[in-house]
Amino acid sequence: MKQFILKEAPDAKLNISNFELQEVDLPKPEDGQVLVRNILLSIDAANRTWMQGRTYRDQVVAGDVMPSYSVAEIVESKDPEFKKGQIVTADSFWAEYSVIESRDVNKCPDNISLPNLLSLFGIAGLTAYHGLFDVGEVKASDTVVVSAAAGSVGVYVGQLAKAIGCKVVGIAGGDTKCKKVVEELGFDGCIDYKNANLVRDLKTHCPEGIDLYFDNVGGTVLEAVLIRMKNRGRVVCCGAVSQYESSSPIGPRNIPGFVITKRLKLEGFIVMDFKEKHMEAITHMTKLLNEGKITIVEDITEGLQNAPKALVNLLNGKNFGKSMVRVAPDPYEQKMS
Amino acid sequence: MKQFILKEAPDAKLNISNFELQEVDLPKPEDGQVLVRNILLSIDAANRTWMQGRTYRDQVVAGDVMPSYSVAEIVESKDPEFKKGQIVTADSFWAEYSVIESRDVNKCPDNISLPNLLSLFGIAGLTAYHGLFDVGEVKASDTVVVSAAAGSVGVYVGQLAKAIGCKVVGIAGGDTKCKKVVEELGFDGCIDYKNANLVRDLKTHCPEGIDLYFDNVGGTVLEAVLIRMKNRGRVVCCGAVSQYESSSPIGPRNIPGFVITKRLKLEGFIVMDFKEKHMEAITHMTKLLNEGKITIVEDITEGLQNAPKALVNLLNGKNFGKSMVRVAPDPYEQKMS
Repeated sequence: MKQFILKEAPDAKLNISNFELQEVDLPKPEDGQVLVRNILLSIDAANRTWMQGRTYRDQVVAGDVMPSYSVAEIVESKDPEFKKGQIVTADSFWAEYSVIESRDVNKCPDNISLPNLLSLFGIAGLTAYHGLFDVGEVKASDTVVVSAAAGSVGVYVGQLAKAIGCKVVGIAGGDTKCKKVVEELGFDGCIDYKNANLVRDLKTHCPEGIDLYFDNVGGTVLEAVLIRMKNRGRVVCCGAVSQYESSSPIGPRNIPGFVITKRLKLEGFIVMDFKEKHMEAITHMTKLLNEGKITIVEDITEGLQNAPKALVNLLNGKNFGKSMVRVAPDPYEQKMS
Repeated sequence: MKQFILKEAPDAKLNISNFELQEVDLPKPEDGQVLVRNILLSIDAANRTWMQGRTYRDQVVAGDVMPSYSVAEIVESKDPEFKKGQIVTADSFWAEYSVIESRDVNKCPDNISLPNLLSLFGIAGLTAYHGLFDVGEVKASDTVVVSAAAGSVGVYVGQLAKAIGCKVVGIAGGDTKCKKVVEELGFDGCIDYKNANLVRDLKTHCPEGIDLYFDNVGGTVLEAVLIRMKNRGRVVCCGAVSQYESSSPIGPRNIPGFVITKRLKLEGFIVMDFKEKHMEAITHMTKLLNEGKITIVEDITEGLQNAPKALVNLLNGKNFGKSMVRVAPDPYEQKMS
């Protein structure tokens, strides 16, 4: 079977040549483990941070099989909790098959399409929901700004906030993505940070200031948004993709200055912290989906061999919505056909 | 009478030559105003930020009489709320006498010594109390770190936290201040940031990590402390004195990185936001003072003519405890003698 290792840790910008495709024997599960066939790999900016050092998980170093959150099917189980044929999400790998500790495997509801398990009903949608409601405590009267607005999380942040009545302005890279965010997803506006005076344009879009900023990028965009925050505004710190490929990271120069004078609150979170509230989120988002108030946006790349390219593209902002790689066909669709 | 104007706005480091002492006629109050005799001027790092731009108040620009929070005595009142001889705190000026809008004047309890109205029972102690309890939600089990530990606010942050059972480590500039903080104020330790590897020394003093950081300085000290924060740690953003005299401010490069991976919360505040809770704070601190659990630390400079020097010294970390300038003798002490 095939798998990717991280051949060498990137210095700054990740390149597809940092990975190597290997042909190895099919691994065998031991007690407390399962063998899964990977179906969809979740491609996330966080993958890049894992190469930078220890985060909420061990650092990924040269020689490691590249880890990946995935949707997979149980092929062989050495844990009575799981049985052959079950669809699961798992802390898996860039590989056709993976052996995983069963504690890193989660059962899935069987009425959700597999890509949706990574997008709206997976880490993307759940991150948007918990960040907005549980961390940001969003209110209908809020003016919300979200960066990486066309990204996996941003598309849902904006739509979830719109659905409760907020004014929503996105920040994204490039005119095409900005147009889509407004026309297809119903944002009130979207600023192309590559072609803008962000501080000035934020004032045009949010003349009264910003109540809630959902930050996926950090760096100079965060600095610009802080200038336009209202007093007592809240910043939900979800990602810092502008910094993941930088060898000399930039901290917003108005921190802590504006945090003090504007009495801001900045708070970071990881979606896994809200496990016990996932069902509440899924119920909320299912209702919106059934009412036609939310659009699912997925960006699927075909074939394990294209996983490095999908991650590099994501880090260069080329995806629209949730990026994933299809490693194997969907067993549900096979059954139906 | 004498008063100081800001002759020219400082480029970076404030100098006593930025101020000019003037001789002017005694001003006259109109309806809704009072004429006060200033007794004690509060010398605060915030004074320097007022020269940088609009904050929570208008910018102080060249030609302005230097504003100052002060303890003063009413000399003439054109507001029925105030009468001659009353002791008040006020948004006043570096002057022997000032005319002030009566909405910027507050009555004082008459059983508190006047310097204490600026230190423990004034903005210094109240800032420490509200930052620690209302913003930081300090708990007895917390390991607390406070920067500018020998400063007006820091001395009370540490003592208030110790009094409820916290472990407290200070950060201050110079061996003398560090020793005093430990020996005279009972901190568990104090690190001299001028002569330390802060990241390493914080690990030595706080091997389990830091729960609560009370930040008075910002910049590279904030960056170093973030490295040692525990997951879900809280940062109370009170001041950024390391940045007030810098023409190229530094933002901590690990923001938002560590804010996300460690799920930190950073929150800024201004002491005036907690007006309705001041009495609770004063009651709490009076009890501690009566029990001998808190030491008042005041650094009084004599004479209006030395106000610029007192502020420059403060910005260079030369004070121990609350800095103030005595402009006129204490009327209470005069009565007693």
